[in-house]
Parts: sequence; C-alpha cells; structure tokens
Amino acid sequence: MSRTAKPMHTETGYSTADSITVYGKNLCTEVLGKVNLGDMGFLGLTGRLPTPQESVVFNAITVTLVEHGITPSAIAARQTILGAPESLQGAVAAGLLGLGTVFVGSMDAVANLLTRTLKDTGDTPDYAALAKTIVDDYAARKAIIPGIGHPIHKPVDPRVPVLFRIAAENGFSGKYVKLMQAVHAEAQSRTTKVLPMNATSAIGSIACELGIDARVVRGLGVMARAVGLVSHILEETRNPMGNEIWHRTEEAATEHKRT
Amino acid sequence: MSRTAKPMHTETGYSTADSITVYGKNLCTEVLGKVNLGDMGFLGLTGRLPTPQESVVFNAITVTLVEHGITPSAIAARQTILGAPESLQGAVAAGLLGLGTVFVGSMDAVANLLTRTLKDTGDTPDYAALAKTIVDDYAARKAIIPGIGHPIHKPVDPRVPVLFRIAAENGFSGKYVKLMQAVHAEAQSRTTKVLPMNATSAIGSIACELGIDARVVRGLGVMARAVGLVSHILEETRNPMGNEIWHRTEEAATEHKRT
Amino acid sequence: MSRTAKPMHTETGYSTADSITVYGKNLCTEVLGKVNLGDMGFLGLTGRLPTPQESVVFNAITVTLVEHGITPSAIAARQTILGAPESLQGAVAAGLLGLGTVFVGSMDAVANLLTRTLKDTGDTPDYAALAKTIVDDYAARKAIIPGIGHPIHKPVDPRVPVLFRIAAENGFSGKYVKLMQAVHAEAQSRTTKVLPMNATSAIGSIACELGIDARVVRGLGVMARAVGLVSHILEETRNPMGNEIWHRTEEAATEHKRT
Amino acid sequence: MSRTAKPMHTETGYSTADSITVYGKNLCTEVLGKVNLGDMGFLGLTGRLPTPQESVVFNAITVTLVEHGITPSAIAARQTILGAPESLQGAVAAGLLGLGTVFVGSMDAVANLLTRTLKDTGDTPDYAALAKTIVDDYAARKAIIPGIGHPIHKPVDPRVPVLFRIAAENGFSGKYVKLMQAVHAEAQSRTTKVLPMNATSAIGSIACELGIDARVVRGLGVMARAVGLVSHILEETRNPMGNEIWHRTEEAATEHKRT
Repeated sequence: MSRTAKPMHTETGYSTADSITVYGKNLCTEVLGKVNLGDMGFLGLTGRLPTPQESVVFNAITVTLVEHGITPSAIAARQTILGAPESLQGAVAAGLLGLGTVFVGSMDAVANLLTRTLKDTGDTPDYAALAKTIVDDYAARKAIIPGIGHPIHKPVDPRVPVLFRIAAENGFSGKYVKLMQAVHAEAQSRTTKVLPMNATSAIGSIACELGIDARVVRGLGVMARAVGLVSHILEETRNPMGNEIWHRTEEAATEHKRT
Repeated sequence: MSRTAKPMHTETGYSTADSITVYGKNLCTEVLGKVNLGDMGFLGLTGRLPTPQESVVFNAITVTLVEHGITPSAIAARQTILGAPESLQGAVAAGLLGLGTVFVGSMDAVANLLTRTLKDTGDTPDYAALAKTIVDDYAARKAIIPGIGHPIHKPVDPRVPVLFRIAAENGFSGKYVKLMQAVHAEAQSRTTKVLPMNATSAIGSIACELGIDARVVRGLGVMARAVGLVSHILEETRNPMGNEIWHRTEEAATEHKRT
Repeated sequence: MSRTAKPMHTETGYSTADSITVYGKNLCTEVLGKVNLGDMGFLGLTGRLPTPQESVVFNAITVTLVEHGITPSAIAARQTILGAPESLQGAVAAGLLGLGTVFVGSMDAVANLLTRTLKDTGDTPDYAALAKTIVDDYAARKAIIPGIGHPIHKPVDPRVPVLFRIAAENGFSGKYVKLMQAVHAEAQSRTTKVLPMNATSAIGSIACELGIDARVVRGLGVMARAVGLVSHILEETRNPMGNEIWHRTEEAATEHKRT
Repeated sequence: MSRTAKPMHTETGYSTADSITVYGKNLCTEVLGKVNLGDMGFLGLTGRLPTPQESVVFNAITVTLVEHGITPSAIAARQTILGAPESLQGAVAAGLLGLGTVFVGSMDAVANLLTRTLKDTGDTPDYAALAKTIVDDYAARKAIIPGIGHPIHKPVDPRVPVLFRIAAENGFSGKYVKLMQAVHAEAQSRTTKVLPMNATSAIGSIACELGIDARVVRGLGVMARAVGLVSHILEETRNPMGNEIWHRTEEAATEHKRT
C-alpha cells in the first residue's frame, strides 16, 4: 500500500482507567453536578462553558425547538415505535430525519445568510442598505427569504419578540440580530400582506451572536428535538395513537378502491 | 368502511395564532428564558418542572452521556456526514442508531430490573435478599447483570461514585439506588475478579429515583448523545478524519487481495 | 499504546484502477447484464449465484415484502420527505426503522425458532412431536408463536399457499417448511378460532430452506422494503398526502384543546 | 375546526381479507414467482412491468450500486450493529444515510442536468452545442460537472463502457446517453488531465432513458445499497471488524493525549 496515512485528531474526549476527559474538562470533577444539558451543548460547540448570560440565551433558543406538538417529525417517530418498540433510538432517529430544509433546518439558511453578508462589513455596517440588497436578490430569484413568513403565527410569531428580548437583556442583540430585523423591515415594506418573522429568524440570528458556527446551527434544532421526541415516545407508550394514524390514513388513501 | 375511528389525544402541545402551549405551559411566558434544556426534558417526561434538586440530578445523569470521545456512534455519524454533508440530521440519526442493547441502551435493562424487582416489596425491602435472588437468577442463566462490569474503568468507574454522591446530596438515594448497590455487592462477593459498577448502573437507578418511566430511560442517553453528536459533526467539518477512517479501514480489510 | 491491532478482513469487494471485484466476481465481466437485483442479494448472502430454481424462490420471497400500501413504514417515510425533500435517503431510512419485532422483523423469530429446533434432529425429524413441544412451550409462556395469526387475512393469508407452492415446485419444501406447517397444524388443533399462517411463516421457513443465515432473515424484508419505499416517495412527490396526514392527525389529537 | 379535509390517494396497494393488490396487480396471481426484485422496483417507479430489454438494463444499473466493499456507508452500518445488534434495520438505515450529494446521490445531479437540458430541445438536439453550454456554465461557476471524474478509476471507470454497451444492445442509448457522452467529450477536450466518466454518469443517463423520474434517481442507489448492506451485516456477524475499526480510530485520534 503506497498511500501515506494522514493523522487523525479529536478534542472531543478520551478516557483512561480512572478518568474521563470531555471537551478538555474532567467530567467527574469539573462537569457533573455543575453543568446543565444545554450548557454542555454550548461547551461542545464553542470549547468553553457559557457565561450566565450565554447560558440563559443558549438554553432559550434550544428550548424553543424541543416540542411543537403533533408535527411530521413526531408522527414519523410514533409510526416507527409501532413496528419496532424495542428500538427507542430508531424512533427518535426517524423523527429527526425530517428536520431538513423545510422544517427546523431552515435555521441554517438564516445563519448562513447573515454570516455571509456580515463577513467583511466592519463594526458599523449599514443594515438598511445590506437588507435592501438581500431582499432585492431574493426578489429577483423569486426565492423565499429565510426566517420570514409563517402560515399560522400572524401577525406575530409569539416566540420572536420573546427571544429577541431575552437576547437583548443578556447582551446578545448585536449585528446579526440587527441585520435580521432590517431584512424583515425591508421585506415587509414591499408588501401589504402581513409578513411575520418566524422563530428560525430569531434562533438563527441569536445563534450567530453567541458565536455558534453557522454550519451547525441546524444542529441546535436536532439536539432539541431529540429531547422532545423521547416525550412523544413516552406518550405513545402510555396512550398510543400510532395505530389510529395508520388506519385512518390507509382508509382515506384507499377509499377509492373499496367503494 | 365499517371500522369505528378511535380518538387520538396528545398533551405534548398545540398552537393557536398567537400562542404556543407545550406540556401544558405557555412556551413564551412560562418557559423561555426560565428553563434549561435538561429541565425541559424532565418536564416532558414527568409533566412538571423539576425542583432545584431534581434539576441538578437530572442534568447530571444526562450530561454524563453527552460525549465519550471517539465511539462507534461518533464514527457512524462522521462516516455519514462524509457522503451527505447537506444532511446534519442524517448524521446525528446515524450516530444515534447504535445506542442499543450493547451501548447506552443497557440503561433500560438496569431500570427495568430495578422497577420490576421493587414493584411489590413495600417501603422497607430486604435489599440483600432481593439482590441475592437477582444474582442467583442471572448466574443460573449465565447472563450478564446489567450495570455491572467495565472493560476499562477498573476498579472503579469514576462516574459512579460522583453520580451517587450528587443523587444522595439532593435526596435521591432511595430504594432503587440501594438495590443497585446491593446487587453489586452480592455479585462482587462471589468473585475474586474486580467487578466495577458502570455508569449505566448509576444512571438507570437514579432515573428510577426521579420517577422517569423505565420504558424510556434509554431515551436519556439518546437525547444526551444527540447533543454530543452535533459537536462531532462540527469537529469533523473543521478538522475531518472521516476520509482517513475510511481509507485505513478499507486498506486493512482488503490487504489480503492486494499483496 | 499497548493494544495489539487485530486483523480486519472483508470478502465483500475491492477495486483497483481498472477493475471492481464484488463477492469474488468481476463486476463488469461476470455480473452486469447477467444478474438481477434479487440474485445479487442472494449472491451477497450465500457467496454464490443462485440456480434458476433458487432465483425464482428467493426473488418470490423478497418481492412479497416490497410493497403493502399505506403502512406505518410508508407513513414515516412520507412524513420525513415533507420536512427534508433534499434527502431521499433519509426518508427511506425513516421508513425502514420501523421494521422491527412487530412488523417484518418477526421473520427473524420464525427463522430462529425453526433453525434452533432442527439443529440436532437429523434427517428425519418427528415434525408433529417437535411442533407439540414448541406449541406447549409458547402456551406455557402465553407467548405468540411467530408466523401464526393475522388480523385481516382470514381464514388464509393468500401469500402463504402461493409461496409454499413456488417453493415446492422448485425443490425447497424441506424440513423447515414441514416443521412450520406442523407447528401451525398443532396450534390450530388447540383452538376453535381460525388461526392463519401469515406471510412471515412462509418467508422465514423458505429462507431457511435456501440456506439464508437466520440472523439476517429480517434483512430480506429490509432490502425489499427499501425498494418499495422509493415508489412511495415518488408518489408523494407527484401526488402528496404528507401534509394532509399531518394536519388531520394534529387536529384530531388536539381537538380537546380547541373546543 | 374550520379547515376542509383534502383527499388522500394512493395507487401503491391495498388489501382485502383474501387478496393483496400491489401497483394495480394481484400480488399472488400476477407477481409472485414471475417478477424479480429489480423488476418489482421498475414496476413501482413506472407503473408497469418492464419489457425483457428494460429488465436487463434496469437490473444492470441497480446491481452496479449494490456493493462496493468497505465504503463509509458500510462502516457506518458496521459501527451501528456493534451497539445495537438487535436492530438490523437500524444498521441498514445508518448505512443508507450517507448516500447524499457526495456519494451515490450524485446520480440525481446527472439525471436532473440531462432532463432539464433536454426538456424543450426536440427530437434532434445539437448535443455538441448543448454540451458546450453546460461545460461553459460549470466552468464559469468553477463547479464540478456531475458524472465526470473519478479518484481511482483512471483512465476509464470500467463500469461505464459496460453499462453503455448493455443499454445500447437493448435499445436505450438515446438522447440522454448521447448528451452525457457529449458533455464528457467537451469537458475532456478542455484539459490535458485524464477525466473519466464515472458510474453515476452512466446510471443517471440510462435511468433517464428508461423513463425513471429524475427526482427519484438517487433512489436506485438507495434500494441497491440496502441489498448490499445486509451482506455487510452478515459478514460483520460472522467475522467482525467493528470493534477493531473503533479501537484503531480512537487510538489514532487520541494519541496526542496519551504520549
């Protein structure tokens, strides 16, 4: 074999017989009992524990995404546990697989748009001008601006002002949030339709404020939804609806064959 | 169609135009900014927010499972993002799918064993006698007692005493923990080999103390590992090893054909 | 590091600059254009191409499992593509994850039961006596005998006689099929309820006749259903029902909150 | 509830007590024993059984994708079965999740490019001119042309001439194949580097010839790889390498901590 092996390297963690190191910290003496699950996610994504302010904000944006009732993601998990009750992990995985470009994953698009736009604009960008350029671009491509619009939560997605307030109170209402709000104002100014910002606009922009790498912002939704899906599986175990979803769907979709 | 439709019912959550209710609480006024990600998991699994003591303990047992460095779960996630970088959720899902009966999922076995044993034993069970019966049963079947034994962490898995201490300090060292410790003592008394309790013994028994339904105890590991896998994908994005894992494995496994 | 590396070895395949070897055969000169997809599955599981008779039988048992209309598996796939239309592989994966102990995966139980029972019984086993022992055992444990019973297909699952006929016509009605049929006869003799054999009884026993390792018999269903799920995703793309499944389910499950 | 329910409709299949209809055919009388697994996939994707020529070609392009030895997909499946041996379906699902834009899923890009380009070009398109436009476009965007280039198979990916020959012999060397070959010729003419067509170029273009909807061409790879992954799991069961992959990777990636 002529290929030269390349090095492999991780900073996620390692164990010895009597110690476990995670993200550079001693799990048993520095982490357990002191760090909550959200802060542990922050530590993994930034390499350091959050300040109290960062902790409040990071936990708020992830908690937002834990649960949203009967979603396609929850239905997929419940249909899966029906056939494979021995594999809770398979049902959670099935539920996560739909967190793509349409649901939840759209946070990526917000974070990437803001990060790309603000890359070389210095400390005092002209938000209104940048927003105009962005809205022009999306209009020219007849594309939907990420983070804007919601089918139900009109005129205001109630999560958005709350999340922006929590971010502001903790010092995280900087340039990403300002640009997102400017984009929304610009887009709204061009239509008489009510155009709410949706939760992904707040989460995507606040995640950028916290220094979360835009490439894994979708991951905030994935980790949060994993938490929520376990509760769906518990409810499905105690008070199931999976069989009924199946039978109602099958009956409706094959009714033309039976009548 | 003659079947009578059965009712479907969820308490996970629902939305109206201007409000979002999750687990019976108003997401925007009662949850965001006040509840961390771990407490949100506790709320979903028990129907109420944790006390401060419960919060410390629940977060400690989930945080234990977030990250363990380069595990099969992390390798699966990293191999998946290599071929489908557009699908972070797919890579996390792939990483979760291995949390079965061998790794992490073994917490289920601990929780089920303890719950089943203590079901009708009253307030002052004879732990030593129950432990003897359990160990006899596993010995007769030549089966491995869940929660006992570790390939690396000898003589003590360092997580175990720390988790039991955190549980005790917060009032959660009750009958499940006592039975687990009695089972360990009984098993150890029968062999000269060092037989450590492993982390799943502590997590499984403490989860029972917290009132988590044994049927979804595995879910604590699944939600925690979802958090950790996002960090693996971030590291893989910045400093990849996926290609090297692939090529080294392929070279080693096909060397007999090439020489 | 003191561990001694262990060897890794695969016979699945390898490539050089100008050739690809798969299961010991030259893909381009020995396989392509000559081998159908089912035969390729047989080759992978047995190490040799099927005879014409084996090909008919193996393709018949896998084809049986490709499609069954609107199943929980299909619903999970359709709910997943709704949120992640960019990830067809994620939707298929979600659909496969429910093929566990309740649906499809129950073939494993049939194959394992038959293999275990016939392990040391020689060439002329007493099928009726073996069947009696099996049925006694399941009755004592109040357990369901794998392969027996169907909620809809009564008195006969129409797939069963057809599959057994195809197997017999091609020389694969040996001891596994005979034992399965004896188990069914014994179970039926003990009740006045109509107790049909279901498709998994035929597929599981015929797979054993073909020499498929019982430990991966479930895999026949998994590969087959992967084929069928792609068609569901195509239909969902052209004539979607995913949103309607979601909204009807959400409305029904949260109606108590809205009225 | 004010929403009007929308109809749901499937043509995939349905059952009655004594019959099973799949893709409009009676499974027991019209399909079993007569149709192989590949033809079943063709039936599901086109609504009709293939001609003998279509059967050869469709099976050839799917068989190409079944197995490729130790790939990231196979490693993910093997790492997953290590932790969850009870869930073969989970291991296959994990292996499929990496079939995205980098591996296998790139067939989508070929099929979409060809379909889009040839949409309104009539019966006698100017292939060279169309190819020039395509290559100009990709060059201007510094993007990689789908289907072109291979890291190992140089100067020729051996699957490509074989697949094009099989397609031609069966009457499926029409405008999609011609345009793909013209694109390759144009791209090759602009560089002195050897630029092979890879297997996805042949499979993507031939799938278009067969009338497979470009939106699910990736699905041919997904169904085929599901077949192959079952063999990997069988080999892993009999002659495992999963633990060794894990330990070698962990040792290499954490060596800097241990020395």
